[in-house]
Amino acid sequence: MTDLGIAIERMEQLKESIDIGYLCICAAFVLLMQVGFAFLEGGCLRYKDMQSIMLKIFMNTCVTVVIWWLVGYGIAFGSDSKEFVGSSVFVGFDMKNSKHLAEFAFQTAVASAATSIVSGGAAGRMTYIGYFILSVVFSSVIYPFCAHWGFGNGWLMKLGYHDYAGSGTIHASAGMGALMTTMLLKPRNQRFNPKYAEHFEPNNPIYITLACLSLWVCWCFFNGGSSLGIANGASVFMSRAIMNTFIAGASGALTVFFIFYLMNIDQGNKYSLVMICNGNLAGLVAITGPCDNVDAWAAFVIGILGGMMMVFANRVLFNLQIDDPVDAISIHFACGMLGANLVSWFDMDTGIVYGKGGYQFAVQMLGSFIYIGWSALIHLITLLFIDKIGFLRVTLEEEHEGLDPATMGCCAYEMVELQQ
Amino acid sequence: MTDLGIAIERMEQLKESIDIGYLCICAAFVLLMQVGFAFLEGGCLRYKDMQSIMLKIFMNTCVTVVIWWLVGYGIAFGSDSKEFVGSSVFVGFDMKNSKHLAEFAFQTAVASAATSIVSGGAAGRMTYIGYFILSVVFSSVIYPFCAHWGFGNGWLMKLGYHDYAGSGTIHASAGMGALMTTMLLKPRNQRFNPKYAEHFEPNNPIYITLACLSLWVCWCFFNGGSSLGIANGASVFMSRAIMNTFIAGASGALTVFFIFYLMNIDQGNKYSLVMICNGNLAGLVAITGPCDNVDAWAAFVIGILGGMMMVFANRVLFNLQIDDPVDAISIHFACGMLGANLVSWFDMDTGIVYGKGGYQFAVQMLGSFIYIGWSALIHLITLLFIDKIGFLRVTLEEEHEGLDPATMGCCAYEMVELQQ
Amino acid sequence: MTDLGIAIERMEQLKESIDIGYLCICAAFVLLMQVGFAFLEGGCLRYKDMQSIMLKIFMNTCVTVVIWWLVGYGIAFGSDSKEFVGSSVFVGFDMKNSKHLAEFAFQTAVASAATSIVSGGAAGRMTYIGYFILSVVFSSVIYPFCAHWGFGNGWLMKLGYHDYAGSGTIHASAGMGALMTTMLLKPRNQRFNPKYAEHFEPNNPIYITLACLSLWVCWCFFNGGSSLGIANGASVFMSRAIMNTFIAGASGALTVFFIFYLMNIDQGNKYSLVMICNGNLAGLVAITGPCDNVDAWAAFVIGILGGMMMVFANRVLFNLQIDDPVDAISIHFACGMLGANLVSWFDMDTGIVYGKGGYQFAVQMLGSFIYIGWSALIHLITLLFIDKIGFLRVTLEEEHEGLDPATMGCCAYEMVELQQ
Repeated sequence: MTDLGIAIERMEQLKESIDIGYLCICAAFVLLMQVGFAFLEGGCLRYKDMQSIMLKIFMNTCVTVVIWWLVGYGIAFGSDSKEFVGSSVFVGFDMKNSKHLAEFAFQTAVASAATSIVSGGAAGRMTYIGYFILSVVFSSVIYPFCAHWGFGNGWLMKLGYHDYAGSGTIHASAGMGALMTTMLLKPRNQRFNPKYAEHFEPNNPIYITLACLSLWVCWCFFNGGSSLGIANGASVFMSRAIMNTFIAGASGALTVFFIFYLMNIDQGNKYSLVMICNGNLAGLVAITGPCDNVDAWAAFVIGILGGMMMVFANRVLFNLQIDDPVDAISIHFACGMLGANLVSWFDMDTGIVYGKGGYQFAVQMLGSFIYIGWSALIHLITLLFIDKIGFLRVTLEEEHEGLDPATMGCCAYEMVELQQ
Repeated sequence: MTDLGIAIERMEQLKESIDIGYLCICAAFVLLMQVGFAFLEGGCLRYKDMQSIMLKIFMNTCVTVVIWWLVGYGIAFGSDSKEFVGSSVFVGFDMKNSKHLAEFAFQTAVASAATSIVSGGAAGRMTYIGYFILSVVFSSVIYPFCAHWGFGNGWLMKLGYHDYAGSGTIHASAGMGALMTTMLLKPRNQRFNPKYAEHFEPNNPIYITLACLSLWVCWCFFNGGSSLGIANGASVFMSRAIMNTFIAGASGALTVFFIFYLMNIDQGNKYSLVMICNGNLAGLVAITGPCDNVDAWAAFVIGILGGMMMVFANRVLFNLQIDDPVDAISIHFACGMLGANLVSWFDMDTGIVYGKGGYQFAVQMLGSFIYIGWSALIHLITLLFIDKIGFLRVTLEEEHEGLDPATMGCCAYEMVELQQ
Repeated sequence: MTDLGIAIERMEQLKESIDIGYLCICAAFVLLMQVGFAFLEGGCLRYKDMQSIMLKIFMNTCVTVVIWWLVGYGIAFGSDSKEFVGSSVFVGFDMKNSKHLAEFAFQTAVASAATSIVSGGAAGRMTYIGYFILSVVFSSVIYPFCAHWGFGNGWLMKLGYHDYAGSGTIHASAGMGALMTTMLLKPRNQRFNPKYAEHFEPNNPIYITLACLSLWVCWCFFNGGSSLGIANGASVFMSRAIMNTFIAGASGALTVFFIFYLMNIDQGNKYSLVMICNGNLAGLVAITGPCDNVDAWAAFVIGILGGMMMVFANRVLFNLQIDDPVDAISIHFACGMLGANLVSWFDMDTGIVYGKGGYQFAVQMLGSFIYIGWSALIHLITLLFIDKIGFLRVTLEEEHEGLDPATMGCCAYEMVELQQ
């Protein structure tokens, strides 16, 4: 080989090293989303159930890491001849090359985030053992197949389904899991009794704010990281994803903030910290799918549509008396479906607003419905099984007492008074 | 083109990709500073106003992102023939190249941090609508011009004004905004009545600690990110900026810690978590401007001077009965002015202690006074307008009740008791 | 020089820039661990001592930064002819090259983390001045020598001692410091009186969760950062370190979670947020040393062994009536010793399970005992000196009242009630 050939080869190695470094940084940030989920859900629930949801989220994070090492990563990103399921790199085997190691870290962190979305439906009344089983099934079967079809060179991807960081592949499918879970669990006791309405208000808006601002930051890496690198022109998608993540998060937050303000303009409490947070998250979920290839103005619009969708879904769920304790369904399911389908409207290359989009429209519709159908089906089977073996819902006494005192000895900060 | 030419061109592309990746990472970390500001200010206020300031900070973050997309980034960093104002890349237009996308994200995050500094002056008594207007003006007019002059190839930069990450351009100008706001709002009711002194103590030192340690970390990227890249020798400025950010933060914190200890040595409460935090922030603000080109020993000294300046300014403001609810003025304004002017003393190439500096001294003095003059003027006009339309200050009843119960339904963690 | 030669030289410069950028990012994340330590220890103590430990951690961070600039970095990583102690780059001198600047930031952040580990032993009863002295000695003498021998090309490293990110070099030696400190301080008053057992339960599991999840993320950079770069093949060690950090953290957490569950299966409170956190940390400490060169399955096993070791050490310490207020000894000392010695079992090149390891086994054993012996000795001398000058332990009154009210004016959130 000539000297020049050697130099070029070394540059290619350097590019790979850079992509690996970049992916590892993104992986760590996406893992940090678990702090966000823990504090978001902990802050949304009643005080007496706060620790229990944090424990569930911590547990599902650990379960996902172990399961993805065993089988999840192999199903999702292993090589595959039939486009339906991957079948290599199980148990860390054959991962000699370090690109695989870094991708494992990133994709495992993403899978952990998906699992935590489901936990929203289990909040405040599911048993730990039941939730443990659900986490195992979600991270070994439900999500790995979704990921393979849409991200891992599977059949949806080959059809042209485009969902960059996963509005449909991740948020809609996991949000559907939260919906199935909450419907089979049935509402928390007295949830829709107006007399107790105040009891179900979020207990800690401060924690929700901490969570939401942290999630916004981590979301930059969730969306930006889906470029899986920065060399060879990937940096343009990464930087556009991050710019759009800024913009859609902001427009979603302002939209819900103003809607809430207008809806409550005659009352004292017309400003809401929780609502600006939920709007922010709604915008972020909606931009997740289209973030790599839409203009900044489109990101602005997508954020607004996400915010409106979240408010609408929240009202519908309330009127249907479906208990959505942490707004997981109205944020992740509704805005996830929205984002997956907005790709066909706003994508700069294939979007309807650019005069294209008939085929893309059909594919996005197909993909998003496949995801929620698949997720609904397997969740249903799993939850019925969990119910059958008696681990679905805690007893009424435990729920009334609060999951924290009933299962963990005491409430979150109760020690303060005891120790003084 | 020869093979070698192609290889070199590819390496240049790789360099650009690396700079973009680096800038995006810095952008995300600077956005994370909003968590810091929210918890810093929330912890410093009275409990009953805690949510209100967090909502203001969340709102101003979203406003800044939207405004910077519309006009702010164009004014600050658009191309310009007259050195006074940029006039391209508005509304994300003409940002086809991805370096612009990444710079947008970074500079927008920086602008959001600047806006949050102003919020300190509005804490505990400004209406949301008034503050919304102020945020719009600050992020569309006041700060973009400052940024253009000092960072965006404007006239101050061409004169030789050197303020690496913005002690003057950002902290002094935004701190002046906090000063104008707090002066026009007048002190909180009973603020300087000694009988109620304890009521105005920071309500949550734990949150302040969380905020301050997080801000220190983010500040590494605020200062380090101002290299706008790492290739082509920029890494030396980046790494020196980060090393100096470590050192000045530490020496500032220890300085204020010991001053407070010595001032209260006869009393029981001679140790203060809030004071070590404020000293840390003071050191960080002071090093922001000179961080790229001063020696480690100078960073140590600058941190100490920042800490002393903060204590001094705090005492002066108290004696003048200027209500500085979150110490924004004594930290950002006073130490920002200090840092901008210490460049001319300690800069390794142009500093007075190295036997140079007559010209630099004059330019730094000019620049920093231009910034505070400009900021004071536009803030004054804006605040008088807000007062005129009746949205400056909340009613005495709302203030007495607390902004949280009066405008948001209830206090931050009140739900805890209700739900038990 | 030929054109090609120039191009290759530029590529080498680019590689160095990339390594510098990477190290600076890692440095910031490792600094962020101080948030984790502050909230971990604050959450573990009694409410009335919470601020005091946070102040100690903030102080020791600043002390370490200053001391490392003055002497620590020079001792640990300065050039050295005798392999025992480094003797250059003191006071930032001779650090003209920017690789040194970035390494300073990273290694200083690592040293700060080590110092915070020791603080666990000082929790709830050591004076600030005594602890200040201890921090100075630890960061100027105890840890820099450890670092030089094991990381800085010192004699242990030359013997072949392999401890990638420092299970022995950092965790065992700092954990031994916590052990010596807590033994010389003696237990907190009434600590082992069963009547008051509940008073010594962790006061805030929510903060512990925040801390632990954040630490897990930061640990990725603590372990991954020890590659000191990503170019020239280092990315393989970095990415493997991060993958293993994910896996061992997860398996450690699940192990302790299940052990606690089985131990308390007959009681109501058989689930514990604190235990899943402690197990996570135990797994992380144990993988720190071997993380760069073990297989994923070995990381899984190491996490499990770490979790078991933590539970075992915790029981032993309790039975010996050694007061380990924040479980620093059972996590850092016990699992650190374990991790340093597991290298010789699981290392892919030199491990016993791969049929090698006689020599490696001896060297790891030697190194880890040298570390704890050295740390024990200097800690003992220092603590006896501190005792002699009367700054070891606070008075019984101060301890009974709580360090926060006794030394800082009031408890952490007491202001809430006052201000309402």
